[in-house]
Amino acid sequence: MSEESFDVIIVGAGVLGVATAYYIQKNSPDKHILLVEKALAPGQGNTAMSAAAVRNMFASSTNQILTDTSMKYFEYVQSELGHDLLFEKTGYLWLLSESQFKHESVQVWMERMKKSGIHYKVYSKKELKKLIPGLNVDFTGDEEAQLMNLQQVDYGLFGGDCGVLDPTRLVEHYFEEFKKITHVKPRFGVYVQRLLLEADPKLDLPGEPYVWQNKKITGIITDKGTFRAKTVVLATGAWANELLDPVGIDSMTKAKKRQLFVIHAEDSPKLKALLNTKGFNEIGCIPFTIVPSTGVYFRPQLQEHGFWIGCGDKLGREYKYFQTDEMMVPESAYYENSVYPVLSKYFPAFEGARPVNSWAGGYSYSPDKIPFVYTECGVLVINGASGSGIMKSDALARIADALYRGLPEAELYGGKKVPSNMLSVKDRKVEIESVII
Amino acid sequence: MSEESFDVIIVGAGVLGVATAYYIQKNSPDKHILLVEKALAPGQGNTAMSAAAVRNMFASSTNQILTDTSMKYFEYVQSELGHDLLFEKTGYLWLLSESQFKHESVQVWMERMKKSGIHYKVYSKKELKKLIPGLNVDFTGDEEAQLMNLQQVDYGLFGGDCGVLDPTRLVEHYFEEFKKITHVKPRFGVYVQRLLLEADPKLDLPGEPYVWQNKKITGIITDKGTFRAKTVVLATGAWANELLDPVGIDSMTKAKKRQLFVIHAEDSPKLKALLNTKGFNEIGCIPFTIVPSTGVYFRPQLQEHGFWIGCGDKLGREYKYFQTDEMMVPESAYYENSVYPVLSKYFPAFEGARPVNSWAGGYSYSPDKIPFVYTECGVLVINGASGSGIMKSDALARIADALYRGLPEAELYGGKKVPSNMLSVKDRKVEIESVII
Repeated sequence: MSEESFDVIIVGAGVLGVATAYYIQKNSPDKHILLVEKALAPGQGNTAMSAAAVRNMFASSTNQILTDTSMKYFEYVQSELGHDLLFEKTGYLWLLSESQFKHESVQVWMERMKKSGIHYKVYSKKELKKLIPGLNVDFTGDEEAQLMNLQQVDYGLFGGDCGVLDPTRLVEHYFEEFKKITHVKPRFGVYVQRLLLEADPKLDLPGEPYVWQNKKITGIITDKGTFRAKTVVLATGAWANELLDPVGIDSMTKAKKRQLFVIHAEDSPKLKALLNTKGFNEIGCIPFTIVPSTGVYFRPQLQEHGFWIGCGDKLGREYKYFQTDEMMVPESAYYENSVYPVLSKYFPAFEGARPVNSWAGGYSYSPDKIPFVYTECGVLVINGASGSGIMKSDALARIADALYRGLPEAELYGGKKVPSNMLSVKDRKVEIESVII
Repeated sequence: MSEESFDVIIVGAGVLGVATAYYIQKNSPDKHILLVEKALAPGQGNTAMSAAAVRNMFASSTNQILTDTSMKYFEYVQSELGHDLLFEKTGYLWLLSESQFKHESVQVWMERMKKSGIHYKVYSKKELKKLIPGLNVDFTGDEEAQLMNLQQVDYGLFGGDCGVLDPTRLVEHYFEEFKKITHVKPRFGVYVQRLLLEADPKLDLPGEPYVWQNKKITGIITDKGTFRAKTVVLATGAWANELLDPVGIDSMTKAKKRQLFVIHAEDSPKLKALLNTKGFNEIGCIPFTIVPSTGVYFRPQLQEHGFWIGCGDKLGREYKYFQTDEMMVPESAYYENSVYPVLSKYFPAFEGARPVNSWAGGYSYSPDKIPFVYTECGVLVINGASGSGIMKSDALARIADALYRGLPEAELYGGKKVPSNMLSVKDRKVEIESVII
C-alpha cells in the first residue's frame, strides 16, 4: 500500500468538506490539500439527500449569523458570479395554532429576529385563507383530525428572505473553485477505515501509543493506502462517530434518518393551483411550508412542478450511532400512514397524491442544535449541523479555515467577524437553538 | 409469554436502580414496584467494578452537593444504622506539579470548595516527601521519565472527608431496606430487549404508533415476557443507549472501558510501608492517590492489604455507544505498558509488582460530567454519572423519587433542598465539572 503525505487531508466531499477545502486552499495557496470521498463524485451523500431549503429564521443569534451570511454569499454567487444555484426566494411559512404562536419560545424567536434585523411577517388566519384558499385552518367537527391531534391554523409566520436551492449546484460551485487552485487532485471512491493516532514522538515500541505518550492524529488509513497530514479535517456528517469514537474523541452528535417524498402537480389542477399560490413572493409560488402538527412540511420544487414532502421525526424514530445503509432507504408505509394523513388534512389538494420518487438520508444532531467546528489533537471537526448544513455551509467553512490558520476570528461573507472558537466543544459561545425542523 | 402490570418498573439493580427503588417505595408505600436486572443478584454490574472511592472534592457546586449529602448518608448508615459499608476516610490526595497547581482550573476548584465549606488542605513538596518518603517528586536527570512526559510533584491537594467504601455493601443496604417494604419480589436474570413505545390512545392500527399519535413508554419487552407500568425507570448506566436510542430519546451519554488491577503488599516491605503511611488520616494509611500524569491513580484496599490501580483513559481509549462484553475484560498489556511505568516512577515501591487480580467495566460519560435525572414520555432516566455514581447514589435516587412524585424540589440527606429538574436535559441547572478522573 502506498503512503503519501500532505499538509491537509479533508475527509468528506459533501458541501461542508468541499467548501472548507476551497477556503483553506484559497487562504493558504502553498499548502497541499487532499480531498478524499467514498462516493465517486462530490455532494453525493447526505448533501444530495437534503430538502435544501435555506432560512435565516432561527432563534439563536449563532444560527442567524451562520445562515444569514451564507445565504448572502449564495446570492452573490448566483447574481455576481453567474453560477446559477437555482436559489429561489420562495419564503418560509410556519403555520401555527394560537397556543403555538403565543408560546414563549415563538415569542422569543420573533423578538430575537427583530433584534437581529431578520425580516419576517405575521399573517392572520383570515389573510392565510385568502392567500391559500385550499388550506384547511379549522378541524372543528372533524373527529379524525381530533384523533390525530391536529392543531388548527391561526397564524402564519413568514420569512421572505428564505428559500430553496439546488445543493448539487452549490457543491459544484465550491468544487470548481477548489479545483482551479488546488495542487492535489481530489480522490473519490476512497473509504476511510480509521484515523491514524500516533505517539508524538514515536518510540517505535510495540502497542504504541501508550497512556503516558503525547498523541496526535497524523493521517488516515483507507482502503487505498495510508495518507498522512499535519491536519485532518473531518466533514463526515452523520458518519462522524465511526471515525472519532475509536480514538476516544467524543463527537457529541448522533444520526437520525430523514426521508423525502416527491409529489408531482402536473395532473392535478388543485395541486397546480397550490404550487402557483400568489402573494407570498415574486416567483408566484407557495413558500416552503411547515404545518402546525408533527413536523410535516413541504418544499415547492419549481423545475419539476411539484413538491418535496418531509417530516421532522421526533419520539419513535430511532437514533443511530452513525449512518447505516438502511438509513438511505425511504419507507412507503411512513408516507402512507404518518405523513400523508396529516398533509392531506391541512391541504386537501394532496388527497390521493402518491409519491413518484423518494429518498432518505442521515441527519446529524448536536445536543444544542448548533454545529461543531473545532480542532483537537490534529483533527479539525465540522459536524452536527442538525439539518441545516447547506444553509450554513459558507460560514462554517470560513470558520474552519480560520481555525486551521490559527486566527482568533473568522471573517464571514459581508465582513462580519466571529470568534473562531465559538462553535468548539470547550469554549462554546452559542445560544441553544429552539427552531429546528 | 406473560404480561403483567405494575405502577413502576425499575430497570437495573446497580446502586442507582436499587437506591431509587428504595426511595420511591418508601415515599409511595402503596405503589407496586418491579425491580428487574439481567444479572442474578443486585450490584453485580459496573457497581461492583468501581474503584468505589468517594469524594466531595468537585469543582461544580452541583457535584459537591450530590456527593457531600450522599457521603453523609453513608456515614449515617454505617454509624447510626450499624450497617458496615467499610466506609473509611482515607482521604483523597492529588499530586500536582507547579503548573498544574497554578492552573486556573485548580484555583477555581479550590475557591469553590472553600465557598461550599468543603475541607481540603494543601501540602508542599517538602511536607509530602516527609510524609511519604517513597514518593519520587523530581525526575531531573531521568531521561526515561522525560520521554514519558512525567510531571514532577510540587503540591498535594488533600481532602480528609473523602475515602473508600465497599459498593456491594452499599447496594445490600438499599436492597435490604427495599425488600422490607416492597410488594413485588425483584426479578433477576431478566434481560430487557426494548422499551415498549405505544400510541396514546391506541387505535389498534397496523404499524402504530404513527407520527401524528401521542406516544408514551408503557413498559418493557424482556426475554421473560412483557411488563407494563405507568413509569419505567432506567438505571442502566453504560447500557442506556441500547434502550433509549431505538425509541428516539437521546441519552446524551456514551461508554468507555475502565480497568482496575490489584497489587498485594504482603510480600513487599516497601509496599507495606507505603500502604501504612501515617499522618494523613486516623486509619494510618496512604490516601486514595492520583499522580500528576496521565490519570494514573491507586486506592488503598485495607481488607486485602493492597492497592487497586487504575487510570483515567483519555485520547486513545475508544468510546463505545453502549457497553460490550469486551469492555468487561481487563488487558494485562495495558497494565504493563501504560500504567505500571508511570506508577513505578512516582512510587518505586511498585517496582516489579504484578497484579494478582484485575477486572474491567463501563464508565458512562455525560457531556458536562454531571449526571442526568429526568422524565420523558413515561420514562425516568438516571445515568451519565461519569465515574461517580456510587458517591452520588443517595442524592440521585432522592431526586429521581421527587421527580416520580412530581415534586418541584427534592430533599437530600441532611435536609438540603434542590430543584427536582436540576439534572434534566431541558432545564439543566449545573456548573460544568472540571475535576473528573
